[in-house]
Amino acid sequence: MAIMIYLDNNATTRITPEVLASMRPFLEDNYGNPSSVHQAGQEARHAVEEARYQLSEFIGCRPAEVIFTSGGTEADNAAILGVLAGRTKKTIITSSVEHSAVRAPIDYLVQHGYRVITIGVDRLGQLNMDALQDALVDPDAALLSLIWVNNETGVVWDIDAIGAVARKHGVPFHVDAVQAAGKISLQFSSRPIDLLSISAHKFHGPKGIGALSLRRGLAYQPLIRGGPQERDRRGGTENVAGIVGMGMAASRAAVMLAKPDYLQRLTAMRNKLETGIVNCVPDCQINGDTENRVVNTTNIGFSALEAEAILLLLNQHDICASAGAACSSGSLEPSHVLKAMGVPEKIAHGAVRFSISEFTTDEEIEQTVRVIPQIITRLRQVLPVG
Amino acid sequence: MAIMIYLDNNATTRITPEVLASMRPFLEDNYGNPSSVHQAGQEARHAVEEARYQLSEFIGCRPAEVIFTSGGTEADNAAILGVLAGRTKKTIITSSVEHSAVRAPIDYLVQHGYRVITIGVDRLGQLNMDALQDALVDPDAALLSLIWVNNETGVVWDIDAIGAVARKHGVPFHVDAVQAAGKISLQFSSRPIDLLSISAHKFHGPKGIGALSLRRGLAYQPLIRGGPQERDRRGGTENVAGIVGMGMAASRAAVMLAKPDYLQRLTAMRNKLETGIVNCVPDCQINGDTENRVVNTTNIGFSALEAEAILLLLNQHDICASAGAACSSGSLEPSHVLKAMGVPEKIAHGAVRFSISEFTTDEEIEQTVRVIPQIITRLRQVLPVG
Repeated sequence: MAIMIYLDNNATTRITPEVLASMRPFLEDNYGNPSSVHQAGQEARHAVEEARYQLSEFIGCRPAEVIFTSGGTEADNAAILGVLAGRTKKTIITSSVEHSAVRAPIDYLVQHGYRVITIGVDRLGQLNMDALQDALVDPDAALLSLIWVNNETGVVWDIDAIGAVARKHGVPFHVDAVQAAGKISLQFSSRPIDLLSISAHKFHGPKGIGALSLRRGLAYQPLIRGGPQERDRRGGTENVAGIVGMGMAASRAAVMLAKPDYLQRLTAMRNKLETGIVNCVPDCQINGDTENRVVNTTNIGFSALEAEAILLLLNQHDICASAGAACSSGSLEPSHVLKAMGVPEKIAHGAVRFSISEFTTDEEIEQTVRVIPQIITRLRQVLPVG
Repeated sequence: MAIMIYLDNNATTRITPEVLASMRPFLEDNYGNPSSVHQAGQEARHAVEEARYQLSEFIGCRPAEVIFTSGGTEADNAAILGVLAGRTKKTIITSSVEHSAVRAPIDYLVQHGYRVITIGVDRLGQLNMDALQDALVDPDAALLSLIWVNNETGVVWDIDAIGAVARKHGVPFHVDAVQAAGKISLQFSSRPIDLLSISAHKFHGPKGIGALSLRRGLAYQPLIRGGPQERDRRGGTENVAGIVGMGMAASRAAVMLAKPDYLQRLTAMRNKLETGIVNCVPDCQINGDTENRVVNTTNIGFSALEAEAILLLLNQHDICASAGAACSSGSLEPSHVLKAMGVPEKIAHGAVRFSISEFTTDEEIEQTVRVIPQIITRLRQVLPVG
């Protein structure tokens, strides 16, 4: 593609050269099936188990607790359906700001005899803990499924506090950590979490590969059944190159997170972008809790505009951003996340998400800060909404 | 890996250089999410739709009938569960020689209120058509799911004749075409098939990507729910590089299949291997219908031996082969396919599958034909089985 200023890293990220280099042998000469007993197969098996170890270090769980999936959406579906399949209880507790990978399987289950309790959020996007406590008291509660880091706003929830309540009531807790991975240290084993989903392409790994961490001993039924791969928890020939790439991306992300200046640098850059825009553009606001937020994301609502128009003009300036989740693009409805937070429609319709990465440069931030005010001014002249 | 004589192409195949070249841009600079509205996303979207068109040409269906999945196992699971979800009927008809990707989801359904009718095969591995006709008369028949080309023996079924009976009785017909793709012209639209599963890594594409063809108008429920990808039939960010690689592999396979000498050359090579072995080794037999068989496969039973021991010695000679399905390796049971065909245990235990590809050379065949008799003689001297 042309040289773009890519500020849409919550949608997907660039594969790093190390990650691609790690994958290449498995896209070329080492093409064995890990289930084959011969040397070609055993080399692939070894690579898969090495990557599983890398993932376990990154997630902070046992290697045997890692199940490779085809991505975050499969991991979320597998977590929710896999836990419920073994339980007679029929009430699912979730929130009003989940990703469609959690909402869609729950909506389906509700059409098939399940009941859902949806916990709301406050205007900062923080979960209503009182409502959560009340819901978890329900003796029919079978599963709590919540997002850790919101994909649209970057707002971070206190998963330890939430999980502690779930554990008190004996309700299994699934965490959609797709946007947390690479931005927060996951530490699965030391937190009150039972299942955790991640996706490689959100932290500079390849698309089409993800993982579900499943706490040892938790009753679970597979979503995809076939051969005995993944200890009978997910059938199908392993995506060896994808798994190896995910392992390398995980190792790399763990190293980056451990560097003292990594998060600081991203925070400074994101804040420069955010402050630059907010200081120059009238009638705009930052959506969500700026105190409890991942370092790479800002969601800015430009009053009285349509986000699609802003994105179109940004694209003409070779700047990639988004209006909420990539998978919701094309929808004329404002974001369900911002709606749940009570953001006025006038602002929600004009909300743009900027999400940076370690590859974002200061020059790109400066260029974006120059371009945005021009675009907003121009649009407000020609396209005044309601 | 070391230079191996790779005769295990039914387990998995080498990615061709063209396929890898087609994938590379999407593993490097073109990393957009196809759901993003900006240029980076739209380039990825365009590539996915181009690959969908290539797949539709290969399968012989409409582009809109192609659903990308994470592989053959997901496609099989999605086909079976996806059709049954919308039907009140509860009887599934299948055969005794299916791959685990079909057997496992059906076994699960049987534990949950479904009924299965399993059609047997004759000693050549051909389906019992009388039993099939009887089964399809059942007014509760909800789905027929059958393998087209057997993965262990290469035996081909007359899918047109089978499908005609299914259609007469109005029973949806799912075909597991994972081993047919690249060896037989699929021609979905002109055959009495309603759903068809394929996997890229069986025809020189990447692992971790497959497709389900779903006849237009057939009621279907997705297996993996999330965003509106794949026309609401399979959620999750698309595996762009995998999809593009599968498209290229499909285009390439279609070209190869259309070449007049392609199948002849493979047949000649397979026959040379088969005849070479059978002529030199006493007490062995070819398992399955040699008249109706794909060109690349031979399954040879070496009487009074264990296949695992043969494979071990072959591996020491840098020759990769297998005992039935890769995913069953490690199991001490003889193949369920050979058992269903009535192959005596004494032969089934020593059955080895050799599966060649266009990259197999005459020299490799000659070397294998030299090595096999030595190995069998040696094993029969040291390891006579009961």
